[in-house]
Amino acid sequence: MLPALAVYASHSAIQVVEGAFREGVGVVLFGPSWRLRLYSRFPSLRFHVVECMGGGCLERLGDECVIVPNGSLVEYVGWEALERSRVPLFGLRGLMRWESSWGSKMRLLREAGLNTPRVYENPEEVDTMVIVKLPGAKGGRGYFTSDNPEEIRRRLEGYVEAGLLKSISDAAIQEYVVGVTMYAHYFYSPLLKRLELTGFDVRYESNVDALARAPKRLREVIGQSFTVVGNFPVYPREALLESFIQAGESFVEATRRVIPPGVIGPFCLECIVTEELELVFFEFSGRIVAGTNVYLLGSPYLALYWGEPMTVGRRIAKEIRMASDENRLGDVTT
Amino acid sequence: MLPALAVYASHSAIQVVEGAFREGVGVVLFGPSWRLRLYSRFPSLRFHVVECMGGGCLERLGDECVIVPNGSLVEYVGWEALERSRVPLFGLRGLMRWESSWGSKMRLLREAGLNTPRVYENPEEVDTMVIVKLPGAKGGRGYFTSDNPEEIRRRLEGYVEAGLLKSISDAAIQEYVVGVTMYAHYFYSPLLKRLELTGFDVRYESNVDALARAPKRLREVIGQSFTVVGNFPVYPREALLESFIQAGESFVEATRRVIPPGVIGPFCLECIVTEELELVFFEFSGRIVAGTNVYLLGSPYLALYWGEPMTVGRRIAKEIRMASDENRLGDVTT
Amino acid sequence: MLPALAVYASHSAIQVVEGAFREGVGVVLFGPSWRLRLYSRFPSLRFHVVECMGGGCLERLGDECVIVPNGSLVEYVGWEALERSRVPLFGLRGLMRWESSWGSKMRLLREAGLNTPRVYENPEEVDTMVIVKLPGAKGGRGYFTSDNPEEIRRRLEGYVEAGLLKSISDAAIQEYVVGVTMYAHYFYSPLLKRLELTGFDVRYESNVDALARAPKRLREVIGQSFTVVGNFPVYPREALLESFIQAGESFVEATRRVIPPGVIGPFCLECIVTEELELVFFEFSGRIVAGTNVYLLGSPYLALYWGEPMTVGRRIAKEIRMASDENRLGDVTT
Repeated sequence: MLPALAVYASHSAIQVVEGAFREGVGVVLFGPSWRLRLYSRFPSLRFHVVECMGGGCLERLGDECVIVPNGSLVEYVGWEALERSRVPLFGLRGLMRWESSWGSKMRLLREAGLNTPRVYENPEEVDTMVIVKLPGAKGGRGYFTSDNPEEIRRRLEGYVEAGLLKSISDAAIQEYVVGVTMYAHYFYSPLLKRLELTGFDVRYESNVDALARAPKRLREVIGQSFTVVGNFPVYPREALLESFIQAGESFVEATRRVIPPGVIGPFCLECIVTEELELVFFEFSGRIVAGTNVYLLGSPYLALYWGEPMTVGRRIAKEIRMASDENRLGDVTT
Repeated sequence: MLPALAVYASHSAIQVVEGAFREGVGVVLFGPSWRLRLYSRFPSLRFHVVECMGGGCLERLGDECVIVPNGSLVEYVGWEALERSRVPLFGLRGLMRWESSWGSKMRLLREAGLNTPRVYENPEEVDTMVIVKLPGAKGGRGYFTSDNPEEIRRRLEGYVEAGLLKSISDAAIQEYVVGVTMYAHYFYSPLLKRLELTGFDVRYESNVDALARAPKRLREVIGQSFTVVGNFPVYPREALLESFIQAGESFVEATRRVIPPGVIGPFCLECIVTEELELVFFEFSGRIVAGTNVYLLGSPYLALYWGEPMTVGRRIAKEIRMASDENRLGDVTT
Repeated sequence: MLPALAVYASHSAIQVVEGAFREGVGVVLFGPSWRLRLYSRFPSLRFHVVECMGGGCLERLGDECVIVPNGSLVEYVGWEALERSRVPLFGLRGLMRWESSWGSKMRLLREAGLNTPRVYENPEEVDTMVIVKLPGAKGGRGYFTSDNPEEIRRRLEGYVEAGLLKSISDAAIQEYVVGVTMYAHYFYSPLLKRLELTGFDVRYESNVDALARAPKRLREVIGQSFTVVGNFPVYPREALLESFIQAGESFVEATRRVIPPGVIGPFCLECIVTEELELVFFEFSGRIVAGTNVYLLGSPYLALYWGEPMTVGRRIAKEIRMASDENRLGDVTT
């Protein structure tokens, strides 16, 4: 039986709804009514609706659904609830736990043999410029840069007091690597046993991208912040594509070893490209990322595998459609 | 009878010519010969030509035309001439007067209930970093930032002497809000009574975007300027789309109240997105903006309403085609 | 007879392979095996393979081939080997020699009557901020900015010692013009005697684009570097398109005068756009540039000539297909 895709109504839901329709797969959009409102504005989108809040959402989804997780689902429903839920998930359920803590997240990148930035266990170790990051998929909110151990401790203690952080050790303190950011999108198909490169984006962040062009006096007094506001399409040098694909393959292999059966469907590796064209990976996302929205008209990279441009949303629907046709849904869900 | 679209030969004329052809609508390109030359270079573009200069252009357009105003038309022909002209205009004619002065422009944004930056009535009030802007659609030329009342008065007096400004009070002195810029494009259809979100862009400005990456010594001695050179496509977080649509709806409602029958066709709301994801609107354009050129292959947002990507130029032609077919041209022109 | 396109396996080869297939033209991808690997990953790409290294590659290509040169070919096989080779080349063979030295490169731009930055013959002449550039198509590697004659000489001597530069006089020392960069792509068709504007990009460079948004302390201690990592799509103001086309036409004319029969196929003019909207050209590339990769889904500018979007890769294949059909291959190869 062909299941419907269950998608939390935010983040990258438009492309999943649109892509599923093209592949003849149904979609259930779920979430609070104020989030659902957006999608009902677009007459070209066809979907069913389940109005719900937080963790309670998962109980409202029928057995005929497959959850397609996105960043908003992880943030607002929570990975623990997702891990406990019995609704089939398109993706590697066990990966969410690894992704939920900075320690295991970076460990998995290193397990894949990827270059990673130096990590500091506590503020007092800091002896260079670092970027400090909160856990979870908060879209960069609360991140800051500093080279001052006392300032780092003071700000993190403030976050703990404000309830934004359970413990100082839950934050990541990473060496600030100088180089441009590049977010590489992938899709691993368990059916085809193939890793597909699906695209790239660069984030548009407030206020850090604003400070770069602010008057001098403001640049000097205002601290940097990293709230993701949107994404830009970017096209890396063709010679880098092979490096990105090899990094993606290493990541797939690492997840197979440590979290069998390994990653399923879309994921993202997030890196700095240095002036020497080295890739330094500082994070990953084990599900569709919002940066894939830059390809709402279809990714030209996916066209290299499928002969026509398509969104990652449509690629997801295609995999589920193929799995259903071949009675292999168990191979693409966990 | 199906009218031809009369378009000033600059700004965003390519997409109007191309889109009108797809919708089976004729186009008259008008303007000086040196502007018309570009369009004759492209064999795929079909249009008629009226060679003319400045305000005299409007008298040369026949009754069978509907003017599709763009930023260059407003700048080179002038809103007063447009207001007096009897040629039907696709858009809200009365909105041009509101747009021509900073006082009424910001008043309309506030009337819509939108967040706006603090405005200073004269240089001496300035007690923080501000951006100072000239009136008209000059593409950012002459804008500057400062936190020094004396410098602001001196530079504005210089503009008055140079004839760039009638009076110091015609300039806008706006609080410099820290956050990234985002230009949201809309189309209001009086026929469908529907607001459509058509896309987003970020401006590429000289020299401010150059100074951000200039050597330190230059950054310190050269003042910022904001001449628009081009536009980048950008894809905001999906959760922001609802906020942008609601802002657009508020703007449509406000124009209905204060300038009946309210806005018609394309417009743009121009904002800062802060690190708290608040939208602060600092300007609007009551007609097609050049930023829509980033979708020369078709906007994916318009596909959400129409089932296929299309440019705003084509969307305009479609509305006029529909109005003509339904004998409702009077509902989309003023 | 319809020749196959011979393309070095890097840079912009994907669009050439894909575009040639659409035009019914065969492709031979050549280069070392580690470069060829990428292309075999994409099932939609059809091509033959010649595994080879460096200058030896040219001898391995059969007579039934036409070389489509790209930046990697020039860098890794060398313009001298290409100049000596008897394999037909789609492009102006003699242009490579002009492009290989900064002196002749800038002379050709001036011969075209284009605005160019002031050039300094040796470090001691430098009296303002300059950008210093190495020869060859190294993608910006080794470039630096300075206003200090001693520092410039010291760094260039270091490059000579390291074997990156034969002589200090082989580097370019150009005035640092303040304004935003814009890379304009063109295609000159000898068959149609027509210059086509094919698009625009902005480069994404490490570390200079990273420093713009780095913490203050890092910005102050780390020097700028300009390694090209990727490209962004950008859409210039419509009024600038005519200026760009006229610049392109002047360049075509100049090459006709000094290197008959003149430029053939794709080229790029690289400029700064100042706050006064003046174009200052600091470089050219006499072949396809990697910035055309931003149009992997097809350039909307090429659609203005051909009625449908297409890549520059496809445009190349189309010209060769037309030349072959008309028995005019000699008019498009040298």
